[in-house]
Amino acid sequence: MRFLVHPSREDLSLPTILYALGDPVRLQMVAELAQASESEEKMACHDFLVGEAVAKSTLSFHFKALREAGLVRMVPQGRRMQVTLRREDLEIRFPGLLEKILLTYQQK
Amino acid sequence: MRFLVHPSREDLSLPTILYALGDPVRLQMVAELAQASESEEKMACHDFLVGEAVAKSTLSFHFKALREAGLVRMVPQGRRMQVTLRREDLEIRFPGLLEKILLTYQQK
Repeated sequence: MRFLVHPSREDLSLPTILYALGDPVRLQMVAELAQASESEEKMACHDFLVGEAVAKSTLSFHFKALREAGLVRMVPQGRRMQVTLRREDLEIRFPGLLEKILLTYQQK
Repeated sequence: MRFLVHPSREDLSLPTILYALGDPVRLQMVAELAQASESEEKMACHDFLVGEAVAKSTLSFHFKALREAGLVRMVPQGRRMQVTLRREDLEIRFPGLLEKILLTYQQK
């Protein structure tokens, strides 16, 4: 099984987080994950609505960018890859930031 | 005189703003501008403290990125280029967002 690197909570960096969210596709992915986490729904890579509009390879690239920035956690579950938003880590590291960005995204 | 393009308030885009702030040098530039605007100080391109740590050409590149994203306004004043943060436009377009990011930056 591939080993997936996730930065620790302490290593989350503000410019890196902003850079990762500075792309329309990634922003939508994070918004979908936030919505899923509110309804305690589990998401796998192929569940994303935004995935219908972009190539699979593009989506993989964006998942990697989000994971390496520390926004999402990716855990292999058999043949699926479960994806969760690292909401708690982000909230502890940068209180209120992600929620503010998501709210701004919804109101745009 | 060179004509400098600035996007209109209505054209400011959330991912573009986040992308522009997703770089440590640009984030520091915006933080310096925010501090200057609070003390109603006028800043020119060569006034930035961050400019001491990076090459002039790098700084020019970052100014262009900030201007094109709609974060700063650049106005030629004789031989100087005056730079101001588009705080009001950003506040109207994305209420509270820039302030939250700046607060997070200061607390980091």
